[in-house]
Amino acid sequence: MAVVPDIALPSPLRAAARLSGVVRRTPVLLEPALDAQLGCRLHFKAEHLQVTGSFKYRGASNALARLDDGIRGVATHSSGNHGAALAAAARARGLEAHVVMPENAVRTKIEAVRAHGGQVHFCAPNQAAREAGLADWVDRGFVAIPPYDHDDIIAGQGTLALELLEQVEALDCIVAPIGGGGMLAGIVRAVAERAPDVQVIGAEPLGADDAQRSLAAGRRVEDHHPQTIADGLRALLGQRNFAILSAADVPILTVSEDGIRSAMGLLWHRLKQVIEPSGAVALAAVAAHSERFAGQRVGVVLSGGNLDTDALLAHLPPA
Amino acid sequence: MAVVPDIALPSPLRAAARLSGVVRRTPVLLEPALDAQLGCRLHFKAEHLQVTGSFKYRGASNALARLDDGIRGVATHSSGNHGAALAAAARARGLEAHVVMPENAVRTKIEAVRAHGGQVHFCAPNQAAREAGLADWVDRGFVAIPPYDHDDIIAGQGTLALELLEQVEALDCIVAPIGGGGMLAGIVRAVAERAPDVQVIGAEPLGADDAQRSLAAGRRVEDHHPQTIADGLRALLGQRNFAILSAADVPILTVSEDGIRSAMGLLWHRLKQVIEPSGAVALAAVAAHSERFAGQRVGVVLSGGNLDTDALLAHLPPA
Repeated sequence: MAVVPDIALPSPLRAAARLSGVVRRTPVLLEPALDAQLGCRLHFKAEHLQVTGSFKYRGASNALARLDDGIRGVATHSSGNHGAALAAAARARGLEAHVVMPENAVRTKIEAVRAHGGQVHFCAPNQAAREAGLADWVDRGFVAIPPYDHDDIIAGQGTLALELLEQVEALDCIVAPIGGGGMLAGIVRAVAERAPDVQVIGAEPLGADDAQRSLAAGRRVEDHHPQTIADGLRALLGQRNFAILSAADVPILTVSEDGIRSAMGLLWHRLKQVIEPSGAVALAAVAAHSERFAGQRVGVVLSGGNLDTDALLAHLPPA
Repeated sequence: MAVVPDIALPSPLRAAARLSGVVRRTPVLLEPALDAQLGCRLHFKAEHLQVTGSFKYRGASNALARLDDGIRGVATHSSGNHGAALAAAARARGLEAHVVMPENAVRTKIEAVRAHGGQVHFCAPNQAAREAGLADWVDRGFVAIPPYDHDDIIAGQGTLALELLEQVEALDCIVAPIGGGGMLAGIVRAVAERAPDVQVIGAEPLGADDAQRSLAAGRRVEDHHPQTIADGLRALLGQRNFAILSAADVPILTVSEDGIRSAMGLLWHRLKQVIEPSGAVALAAVAAHSERFAGQRVGVVLSGGNLDTDALLAHLPPA
């Protein structure tokens, strides 16, 4: 197997230098009662407290920082957190952001893009319409910033792991959710640059398990019909990300929908943190495979906290 | 008016020395987007992250620390956070805790007392039955620890304000919810000991406004028929607490039920924190009276985060 020189791989270290003072250094949360329950020492990296409520702001900010001055702005298609993150990162650089969204996108995610200054353009809810919509904006001179299959995005997301490695000594492993794979590939690269003895483990809903199947098969599978409440993890594993995860032989643990709901419950009840379903998947993997983590010092990425809290709060008991 | 010598008043400073290493030093949370929305600089004291999920652990731990060795244990009646806090504080000292609870108490609050090692005894849901139930345990040699109308409880709760004053420079005011008044009286005492120029302001549901009426009337009113979702603030203002708040001329701002729901929504959505209705009342007061706080540096106490999150999560949208 040919060894790819490091210079050609995404570098979270270089991204971190670029993002200092731009992204939030999110805290690491501890909860001894949960440690006792699961039999390991959990260190939660709180990316739901990142600007825009998810880790996506890191990659978007890094991609923006790499663009030349003088461009008109950026564009993407997104039904989720990447759109809001790109809008916020573009605004921070004084640029326009155009986000093509399927017309059936979740209300709160549309509002989030607009709240961060992004311009929303609706399209039919299919991949072809999304790509055609984006192509229109690229034709008008806007730079396309993809959500995960891109070295600048990967490097930016990886900065969360660099922080975690600085914040917590002697971690045995880092467990993070995988959808398109940009964050997990970034974590692999951060660990390679800073702490190669730390194991990186992916956590994936069984109902959207293309990453596990792809890595097991040694080729990127494309038959993918995701069905999971973890709406942030429904994407198909990116090509670049497949190559990085595959080369590093990253294990993927799958979790059930009940496991995801149960992990969300633990995070809401014990940590008092509002975490979206995708953000609870790493803890769900630790809980479902607790024997594997027994006695270890485990980094767990809480990737985001964006969900329709108003809809849930409508169900509070009355006075 | 006779001046009461300080030595006779509850001292958060002395409590803080006792509680060092026993209670958590909770963080202060900031959210620039909320500051921009409300026109002041908010510093959220995160007592929902205290042991047992509320500030009540401070007072309970202080009361426990003041007891002689050799007692059998402690007892209280409670339908809420004080019961769980007392159970946890007693367990930390190796003592039994008996908690008399009305038979219609909220399921999750009963579970919380038990989870922290307390023994639950049910009684009829009225004040006489609660007091009779507690008297039984006192007769058997257990020390009664009341929830708020007690100097050791007041002093313990006040330690949260000492921390906040250390964590944030040059606060203009501290806004905190008021039910029985133990926490607000403790904050008044902490400010008197450490930073007498900082104004203390109470926040109370309009549907449970006995504190505002009592302070306006100059005597403790007892006609009180609370109706509010803020279940932690339904108690009648304590006598000791009335005396302290009255002497310090503490203003009380009232908030509507809609205001409480809306403030909860902001805290869940913007801060990503699970806050119970009572815990959102201070922010609701700032939002409802924002002109009063314009440009100020405001301490806002998030007093607790205990509510039935499983019931809310049952309403997540399906996969």
